[in-house]
Amino acid sequence: MSETKAGATVSAEQRRIEEELVERVVRSFDGTPSPRLREVMEALVRHLHALIREVRLTEGEWAAAIDFLTRVGHMTDERRQEFVLLSDVLGASMQTIAVNNQAYQDATEATVFGPFFLKTAPRIENGGDVAGGAPGQPCWVEGSVRDTDGKPVAGARIEIWEADAEGLYDVQYGDSRVAGRAHLFSDENGEFRFWALTPTAYPIPDDGPVGELLDATHRSPMRAPHLHFMVSAPGRRTLVTHIFVAGGDHLDSDSVFGVKESLIKRFQEQPAGTPTPDGRDLGDATWTRTRFDIVLAPPGV
Amino acid sequence: MSETKAGATVSAEQRRIEEELVERVVRSFDGTPSPRLREVMEALVRHLHALIREVRLTEGEWAAAIDFLTRVGHMTDERRQEFVLLSDVLGASMQTIAVNNQAYQDATEATVFGPFFLKTAPRIENGGDVAGGAPGQPCWVEGSVRDTDGKPVAGARIEIWEADAEGLYDVQYGDSRVAGRAHLFSDENGEFRFWALTPTAYPIPDDGPVGELLDATHRSPMRAPHLHFMVSAPGRRTLVTHIFVAGGDHLDSDSVFGVKESLIKRFQEQPAGTPTPDGRDLGDATWTRTRFDIVLAPPGV
Repeated sequence: MSETKAGATVSAEQRRIEEELVERVVRSFDGTPSPRLREVMEALVRHLHALIREVRLTEGEWAAAIDFLTRVGHMTDERRQEFVLLSDVLGASMQTIAVNNQAYQDATEATVFGPFFLKTAPRIENGGDVAGGAPGQPCWVEGSVRDTDGKPVAGARIEIWEADAEGLYDVQYGDSRVAGRAHLFSDENGEFRFWALTPTAYPIPDDGPVGELLDATHRSPMRAPHLHFMVSAPGRRTLVTHIFVAGGDHLDSDSVFGVKESLIKRFQEQPAGTPTPDGRDLGDATWTRTRFDIVLAPPGV
Repeated sequence: MSETKAGATVSAEQRRIEEELVERVVRSFDGTPSPRLREVMEALVRHLHALIREVRLTEGEWAAAIDFLTRVGHMTDERRQEFVLLSDVLGASMQTIAVNNQAYQDATEATVFGPFFLKTAPRIENGGDVAGGAPGQPCWVEGSVRDTDGKPVAGARIEIWEADAEGLYDVQYGDSRVAGRAHLFSDENGEFRFWALTPTAYPIPDDGPVGELLDATHRSPMRAPHLHFMVSAPGRRTLVTHIFVAGGDHLDSDSVFGVKESLIKRFQEQPAGTPTPDGRDLGDATWTRTRFDIVLAPPGV
C-alpha cells in the first residue's frame, strides 16, 4: 500500500494497473509521423494521467470537468474566446510567453498579449496622442529603444493599446470607434514619446464559466492597470509587453499573472497647471508622466 | 544551464522565472473555500505548467491547442459529446474508472461506460433476447453473479447493451427503435442467461476534431468487439464493464483503452444446426456461446 497526495491508499496491484494503462496510452502514439506531435502527446498523456491519479479524481468530478469544458466551448464565438481566458487565469498563457521569450541579458521582459490588439491601429507621429478622444487622465510617456549591446534602435515600430477610464477597450463598445490605440516609430536616436491615458484597472470578462471558476476560488477578475506595447524591428526579437503603474491596484493579484517587477513603472502625478513637455494646454486637468526604456533581444534567443 | 526533455537549454535565471510563476499561480488558489477544489486546482496548475515547460510549448502550438479545444466545443451538442471522446482517446476516462474501481480481491474489473447506455432499456426474463430484432449473429451468454466471498448474488440487476452487426447502437439510427439493449435479474442461484448478438468492431465517431487527432497520430478509431454490462445489487459496488471477444480485432489497439486481459472471453462458434441450450430454432444460422462469471466487490473499496 502507498498513499497518494489525496490521502487514498493504493495497493501495489492497483498501482501496477494504473501505470500499465499510462504506458499503453503513451505507446498508442508511437506511430505518429510528426516527432514533435508525438513528443507533445506523450507529455500531455503523462501529465493528464498523473493528475487524475494524484488527486484520485472521482467520476463525479470527471463529469463536472466535461460539463465545464463544454460550457467554455459554448461560450466561445468570434467575439469571445473563453478558452484563452481559461488559459490566462491558469497562468498557462503567461508560462507559454515565459518559455518563448527567455530571459536574455537586460532585454525587457515580455508579458501576456491579451485579446484586444488590432493590426489596424492608426499611425501617429512621435509626440502624438494615442487616446484618440477616449476618456481618461492624460499621460505623457517617453523612452528609448535599444538593443542588448546598448545601441539605439531607430525606426522600431511601437504599437500601443489600452483601456479607457471606464475600463473598456474601444472594441468593447460595439460601435466603430477607434481609440486608445496607435502605432509610431522610434526616431533616429531610438527615442519615442507620446500622449496616452493613465492606465486604470478593469475586470476580464467574468460572466461565463471562467468567471464562475474565479468566483468559486475567491479570485478577483481584475487586471492591474497597464499600458500594452508591442515593439518590433528588423533583426530583433519582437517584444510583447505592458508597463504597470507603481502603487496601482491588483499588482499582487493580477487575474492573468501578467505583472513582472521590472515592468512596474512610476507614473508621476502632475498637478493641474504643470507645464507639459510639448507645450500642450491641458487646461485645469491633472496629468501623469512616465518613462519606459526598452531593450530588444536578438532574434532566436 | 540545464536541458529540457525537448532539448532546449534553459538558464538558471530563466528556470527561476518559470518556477516563480508556477508558485504564484498556485498561491492564487489559496483562498478557495473548498479544500478539495483547491487541491484539484493546485495539481492541475502544476501539471499544466510542467507540460508547457517540459515540451517548451511554442506560441503557435498554444494557439493550435486553443483552436482545437474551440472546435471540440463547437462539435459538442445534445447528441455528440466530443470532450468525452477526447477524454476517451487520451485514456483519461479509463484512468478515472481505474482510480474509482480499484482492484479488490477477485472482483471483476471495470471498464469504460461509453455514451450509449439508456436507463430505459426493456426488461427481459432470464433466457430472453437482448437483440430485439437487431441484425447480427445470435450469441448465447450465461454466467453467475457472486460476491468476493464466493456467495451467489440473487436478484442482481444486469443491464446489457451492444452495437449490431452494422456497428451501430439503436440510438445512432436516429429513429425510435429500441434494440440491442435490455435488463434482467440474476436468479435465486445468482445465475443468468440470455441471447444477444456476437459483438462486432465499430469506430468511435471520427468526423470531428478528435477524429483529426487520431488521423494525425495514425491511430485507429476502432473499438474491439464487446458487449456492455452494468451489474448492480444492494450492498455491492456497481460494476460497469464489457466482455471482449477472444481473437477479435483491435484487442491491442482499442481506441479508448477499454480492454483488460481478464475481460477477454472465448466466444465459441457453433456450426449451423447445433442444438441451442434452450431449444430455440435458429434454422440454418450459425451462433456463438460464451460464459461470464461476475464477482462484485463490497461498496466503498
